[in-house]
Amino acid sequence: MSDWKEKSQHARDYRDASLAKVNPPIGKLPDPLPLSSQELPKKYLTAREYELTHNFDAIELLGMLRRRELSSEELTRAFLRHAVLAQYAVNCVTELMWDEAITRSRYLDSLSEPLGPLHGLPISIKQQHGMRDKPCHASYVAWIGGPSVPNTINDILYASGCVFYVRTTEPQSTMQLECNNNITGLTVNPWNRDLTPGGSSGGEGALLGMGGSVLGIGGDIGGSIRCPASNNGVYGFKPTSRRLPLSGMKCTMLGNETVTPTFGPLTRSRETINLFMDLVLKTEPWRHDPTLFPKLWTPVKLDRPLKIAVQWWDGVVKPHPPMIRAMREVSDACRAAGMKVVDWVSLDHAKAWNILSRLYFPDGGEDTIDLIQESGEPLLPLTEWIIKQPGVKKLSIQELWALCRERDDYRAAYAAHWSATAAHDGHEVDVILCPATPGAAPPHECSRYWPYTAHWNLLDYPGVVFPVTFVDPVKDKRDDTYVPMNDQDRFNHELYSPERYVGAPVSLQVIGRRNYDEKVMAALEAIERAMGRDETFRPKL
Amino acid sequence: MSDWKEKSQHARDYRDASLAKVNPPIGKLPDPLPLSSQELPKKYLTAREYELTHNFDAIELLGMLRRRELSSEELTRAFLRHAVLAQYAVNCVTELMWDEAITRSRYLDSLSEPLGPLHGLPISIKQQHGMRDKPCHASYVAWIGGPSVPNTINDILYASGCVFYVRTTEPQSTMQLECNNNITGLTVNPWNRDLTPGGSSGGEGALLGMGGSVLGIGGDIGGSIRCPASNNGVYGFKPTSRRLPLSGMKCTMLGNETVTPTFGPLTRSRETINLFMDLVLKTEPWRHDPTLFPKLWTPVKLDRPLKIAVQWWDGVVKPHPPMIRAMREVSDACRAAGMKVVDWVSLDHAKAWNILSRLYFPDGGEDTIDLIQESGEPLLPLTEWIIKQPGVKKLSIQELWALCRERDDYRAAYAAHWSATAAHDGHEVDVILCPATPGAAPPHECSRYWPYTAHWNLLDYPGVVFPVTFVDPVKDKRDDTYVPMNDQDRFNHELYSPERYVGAPVSLQVIGRRNYDEKVMAALEAIERAMGRDETFRPKL
Repeated sequence: MSDWKEKSQHARDYRDASLAKVNPPIGKLPDPLPLSSQELPKKYLTAREYELTHNFDAIELLGMLRRRELSSEELTRAFLRHAVLAQYAVNCVTELMWDEAITRSRYLDSLSEPLGPLHGLPISIKQQHGMRDKPCHASYVAWIGGPSVPNTINDILYASGCVFYVRTTEPQSTMQLECNNNITGLTVNPWNRDLTPGGSSGGEGALLGMGGSVLGIGGDIGGSIRCPASNNGVYGFKPTSRRLPLSGMKCTMLGNETVTPTFGPLTRSRETINLFMDLVLKTEPWRHDPTLFPKLWTPVKLDRPLKIAVQWWDGVVKPHPPMIRAMREVSDACRAAGMKVVDWVSLDHAKAWNILSRLYFPDGGEDTIDLIQESGEPLLPLTEWIIKQPGVKKLSIQELWALCRERDDYRAAYAAHWSATAAHDGHEVDVILCPATPGAAPPHECSRYWPYTAHWNLLDYPGVVFPVTFVDPVKDKRDDTYVPMNDQDRFNHELYSPERYVGAPVSLQVIGRRNYDEKVMAALEAIERAMGRDETFRPKL
Repeated sequence: MSDWKEKSQHARDYRDASLAKVNPPIGKLPDPLPLSSQELPKKYLTAREYELTHNFDAIELLGMLRRRELSSEELTRAFLRHAVLAQYAVNCVTELMWDEAITRSRYLDSLSEPLGPLHGLPISIKQQHGMRDKPCHASYVAWIGGPSVPNTINDILYASGCVFYVRTTEPQSTMQLECNNNITGLTVNPWNRDLTPGGSSGGEGALLGMGGSVLGIGGDIGGSIRCPASNNGVYGFKPTSRRLPLSGMKCTMLGNETVTPTFGPLTRSRETINLFMDLVLKTEPWRHDPTLFPKLWTPVKLDRPLKIAVQWWDGVVKPHPPMIRAMREVSDACRAAGMKVVDWVSLDHAKAWNILSRLYFPDGGEDTIDLIQESGEPLLPLTEWIIKQPGVKKLSIQELWALCRERDDYRAAYAAHWSATAAHDGHEVDVILCPATPGAAPPHECSRYWPYTAHWNLLDYPGVVFPVTFVDPVKDKRDDTYVPMNDQDRFNHELYSPERYVGAPVSLQVIGRRNYDEKVMAALEAIERAMGRDETFRPKL
């Protein structure tokens, strides 16, 4: 076995040893595994475990914990066993924290008062984010066994009383909207294992989509929270950068500030996002992390019916029929509820992608490729694809400045474009409704069009993904008359057939102006109410 | 005459032609000019002009204009003539806007309602900031005759009803805390022409210090608002970056984001700063400039007596006796008013300067030096001095990232250091009281220690300068027993003798945490009240 394979085997042994702690063990799964993993929890978990992990969102569970209708230990054991099942089914785990989680839950149960707003709640964390006293490889073989650095959000969640119980997978370099690497291998979609769960927070997406978590933390620089939320039919929120602390993310190119990633939650309910943002910001993280703007989570009340712009397409790649149907259904509901619905005019999104992809790798990808080559692990096709986007190259300082000016000019043009939507009626568009991906979760190695999420990273606009429907073979026929506009459009168009996407969730995205994070969440609430969803709505699992 | 001298003469001819419009002309000034220019306005302006330009702050003038006790034209003519006098005395003008200003003031006088919150008020602008339909050289001979770009703040001020009447000088490269360049030459201090007015907004500082403006706009990346405010005994506010729009600043290295400049006001009263911030932010500039954080000017009410930390020195260079006396007098007054006064412990400010000076020129100064060489104009000593700071060099992308990490680590350490001040009594320090300069305005070419202002640019902390006292030959004796700690300290120590600094204003600075801009202004109000100053206080002119 070559060196890198051996090293990579160590990481899998570490994972497997952690999984082996599960007690009682999970029964043997069928071989081959079924296309959908959604029936497995009912079969392989106890009825009580199934109930606890599937029937509630984080807020309901926290209420039950606070009222002592439920012990943290019982809940934690249920989620621990669900995580093991999810690993067997979709390969989304890098480490199970059996002993630590049970010890922690018992400690929390022993307290006479709740420790904080997350008292007793099990939370899943993307492996790359690091975890105190835990190794962190962040998907690179070279970093296997390497240390974590403290992660401020993890520390805040822990101080708020949560239980960490599982760490989840990410793709090589974390610059993929899928979830494959040379250590843990391929994570698959719990709705259809032939499809990708998305990425880079793909382990989180798959775990939440299977019911194995109610709150997971991911990171997003091109869609890495929103794409897996969308592909797995759960909620995912990417705030504007500089609201949440970022320390503890292990990645290459640290110190690069051409485009800024952010952490954010994947959840089973809209309100869990508000809970998360509120509790993190209440700790005033800016007092320790001066990159942040000091602003508490400040829910906004809409003072008039929303004005929503629907981005039917971005002018480059036409979304698949189920995405179009979802936009039609949601926008019809919004219109019926008295909102104003207009069409969004996309402003040269192809140019934006060209700027963004160059901003991702101002060193031409050197830092990332060097780290991959250090261990000898192979460069995976989707890693190579993103690093080799047209124009990506190692820049001089002056070229970097010129590129930053291109970015800033584009951002300013987009701001003016948005402000101009007030021209007709004096009210600018409140939010954009759009897909987060040009189709439902695609087959593996086909996620080659990022801009439905990444465009908003270039602009640093906040975005929330919410589940809408599922691919429907009757309603979502392939349009064989469609003539693709370009190669990217053709690639995407040819991907689609209802049979290929069977069972796949269809989600949409709400986008707001930079730093209008609270407005995005208020708009999502209004939209979901228009869709007939009340506080008790939960995505189908 | 060499090419660059000829070109530079064109710019002076342009200026002189603009000054020649003044009517009636200013009488011939004494030759040689007196050391202090402060007695000239009374002699060379009419009594009414003197009254209008010297006896009120912007807020009082705006009230008089609104109540029509005063026409904008009369006021504008007074400030225009004062600006010409100031040019003759201290050489602070690049262009007088005689015709435009009078036309504008007459238009405003003709309206039945005020145009906006600045209706009729003459405002001075640093030349580098650009002005619609005006050339802008930004101190570089190569750029003489070059175009301005639109300046958002200017547009906001104009839409608010102001009158632009004069554009003012800045030093070569604008990276000097003095005010000399190869086009307009040396601007001197109106209190003592042997001293520098500071820079880079030195023309603004000198003009305000002589009574020729009540509101000027400058820019600050190392002290360029606060140093001239301090040297000339007026108010100057540097907000946290990303509060005010920056577009329209003409300078080299555009696109560089290692350290961010900001515009800000120089004023004759504290409340004029609040007025300026409030009116600019009320226009919601973030809707057009997405680099800004959307937050209105939100005055804070202090809920307990201030806790002030006095930075007696920064651990590197000991401030001169008048600065120490000023800190003692102000802190005594604060203590007597019931505030808690503690000592600030400076956290390795020498290291901070090393980081910052390298951040200023990630291209090793190439862009700036190339532009200077393009025309053949000489590199001035203070420009060379800042570009040749130890460690400044052209960086690779990876070296740039490493330097940005150094910056971020230092910022995080400082935030922790500040937060730790809550350890003893549960209340962290609200603001730091410190000098803005290691002494009063020094002799020309001696401004070689920036960190009393620039340190807070590295940290991006807001700071306001306010006038305190004047160098007093009796109280501020040189301390001949002092043993300098290092070469910089020796240079500064040896500069001082009360005779050399005769007449120089002594100012101090209030610093707050990043983005606590409104708190800084609330603290300044509390401090000035403790000093016995009410709303009617104006700096001595």
